[in-house]
Order: sequence, then structure tokens, then C-alpha cells
Amino acid sequence: MLSPTPRTRLRRKRDRQQSDPTTLHAILDEALLCHLGLVDPEGAPLVLPTMHARVGDVVYVHGSSGAASLARDGEVCLTVTLLDGLVLARSVFSHSANYRSAVIRGRARRVTDPDEHLRALEAIVEHLTPGQWDHARRPDRRESAATAVLALALDEASVKVRQGPPGDPEAVAEGDGRWAGVVPVTTVLGAPETCPALPADAEVPSHVARWCG
Amino acid sequence: MLSPTPRTRLRRKRDRQQSDPTTLHAILDEALLCHLGLVDPEGAPLVLPTMHARVGDVVYVHGSSGAASLARDGEVCLTVTLLDGLVLARSVFSHSANYRSAVIRGRARRVTDPDEHLRALEAIVEHLTPGQWDHARRPDRRESAATAVLALALDEASVKVRQGPPGDPEAVAEGDGRWAGVVPVTTVLGAPETCPALPADAEVPSHVARWCG
Repeated sequence: MLSPTPRTRLRRKRDRQQSDPTTLHAILDEALLCHLGLVDPEGAPLVLPTMHARVGDVVYVHGSSGAASLARDGEVCLTVTLLDGLVLARSVFSHSANYRSAVIRGRARRVTDPDEHLRALEAIVEHLTPGQWDHARRPDRRESAATAVLALALDEASVKVRQGPPGDPEAVAEGDGRWAGVVPVTTVLGAPETCPALPADAEVPSHVARWCG
Repeated sequence: MLSPTPRTRLRRKRDRQQSDPTTLHAILDEALLCHLGLVDPEGAPLVLPTMHARVGDVVYVHGSSGAASLARDGEVCLTVTLLDGLVLARSVFSHSANYRSAVIRGRARRVTDPDEHLRALEAIVEHLTPGQWDHARRPDRRESAATAVLALALDEASVKVRQGPPGDPEAVAEGDGRWAGVVPVTTVLGAPETCPALPADAEVPSHVARWCG
């Protein structure tokens, strides 16, 4: 599935390219955020942050109606990046980051079938907070019509992963006593903050408490 | 500076638009990661994750030579997003995210002046780990030539901020007993991991220890 096409094959640092679809899936499933790239009517790029969810070999993207209109007739690029660490090398040149990223290219399809639209919204809500779909009130017809969802097949994706300590040549050179290493970066969910419209002691549902660890 | 142009003025949810440059600066200064949007030679969008640093009213972006070539003659879009929380509303429709984002559009300039190039690299290294520039070995001429840096003026930027509890109409409706609230999301730097080429008890420099809090 992830056999690189000419435009997704890495031209540099090829050792960072991954062709295993499980890595692509894991990146999409872990990330809370994605960036959707479009070309605007004047031909200029536009990158918008939004939310997504993967269902099998398709990624659904929550889009504003404007973004959906721009994307409808053209190619998009959906990029998801998990930053795992700052790589502090001995030389400035070898500084890097530990990360896992997916760059997915293709033609987005606006989801218009009501059943698929509802399933896509469910996937996005469940992706961001498992258990939340059954907790919340479902969208009515007006709300569904006002919520654009794009679907993008995972046919053409470039997955890059860098992990581990600094790789600078000075690591093995004698006499360079500089410290080097990695500063881990993680995304953390904090304690839930109850809506002020509710009593302050309102019980946090178990699926939310569990999600926040 | 941030007076919206027709293409950066928000068409929807205008209450989220900010025109204060200090907010733009704060977003750029806090984010460890950015996403650079380009249009490839076939006219398709391409979004690549990379690192950046702001110096005054310019943002410098670390680019691969390929990205720099693509960006050189055309417009780019640099998007930086800080995810601050998952907004769990009573209705699916009102689910949202708390975030601060900046979408900067314009023509990127490849930095070729050696002094500006070095200052830009310093800014990027210092942005990611303050104090690291003086600790690490500076790039030599070959290394500098192999490191592409793009400069983008902050002339045309759209800044959006959403903070606070869910804003769903059900918040004030009687009889809806559903829990609603916000799950805070933060980015955390962990304890530094010393490079295995060094003695395990090598002292972590004070600027790194301080940065990891």
C-alpha cells in the first residue's frame, strides 16, 4: 500500500522512510491534530489545522465549508506530525528532532452520504475522546449539513520516523567532551475542567476520567 | 501589521480572529514545530513539518534543500498550531478544540547572506533550547551550505484563538444533565536522556536542565 510514488519517495535521508502501513496507522491514530494543505483559487498554498480520524484505509477530516469547497476539486495534502524529542547534538549541524510524521497526498472527497457522514463524525469524536459519542447528543439534520467532512484515501503516503540519540560524527570522536542527548517531548492530557454551567462537583464521566489518565 | 487582507480575513467564526501582533509572536515563540505549505511543480499542495524561530517581524524556517527549491519562486503558507484542550460539549455539533494558531502567507526568501544565515540558525537553535548555541560547535562552511534557511515576513497573518468552556446552547438549557467540559492538552519536556556515547553519569548542562524544568 505504501509503495512510494515518485512524489512520495524521499530524496534525502531515505533511512527515515517507513513503508509499513501499521506505522502510518499508528501515527494517524495517536495524533490529536492534523494540518490540511490546499491550493487556493489564486494558486497559493493554504495550510489549516483541523481534526481527523482514521477508519481502515481512509482518513476523515473535519473541515470548514470554505476549506471543503477549496479541497473539493483539487488535490490536498494531509500532514500529521508527532514530535517526540529535541535532539541536542555536539555540532549545530547535527541538531535534529525525534518525530513520526505522515504526509498523505491525494484528491479529497466531500462526504455527502448521510450514513457515512455520521460514521465519520463518530470516528472523529471517538478518536479525540473514546466513549464520547455515546455520551453526547447526536447531530440533527441542520447540524450535520453545517459540518463538512472530507475523506482522503491512504493510497499515497510518505511516513518518516527519526528516533534515538544524536547521530553526529563527533559522537565517536575523542576529545569532544560536550554533553549531547535528547530532550523527550510528550503531549499530556490534564485533569478535566467541568463546564462552569454545571455544579462544580458534577461527576466526570468514567470515559473522560479514563482518557485523562 | 495584522490588518487582515481579503485572504486572511476570517469568513466564519470571526470572534476567534486576533489582530494583536503580540499574540502572533507568542504563538510562534512557544511552538516547537511548524508546518510549511508549498505548491509542487504539478500544482499540488505539499505540507512539511519543520522547525522555525521568530526574529522581530520575520520567521526563519529550517528547510530541506528540496523544500527550499520549491518555495523559492512561489508563495508559501507557514502554519503553527498550539493545541490547548479538547472541548467536550453536550452536543456533538458543539465539540471543539481550544487552540492558538497562526497562518502566515507570503513569498519566502532563501537566506543566502552568510551573516544572516548564521543568525537565523542561532535563532532556531536558541528557540528550541535556550543556551544551546553557545554549547554546540558552530557550523563550518560546508555544513552551512548544506542547511537551507527560508525567511518569511510576518506581513500577512491570520491568528485564531479559542479558549474556554464549551459554548453549546445546551449549556443554559434546563434538563440536560450531561457532563461537559474541557480536557487540557499540554506539551511537556521530559528528563534529558544523555547520549549513550557519553558516560551515563555525564553532567547535564545547566541550560538543558533548566529548559526541561
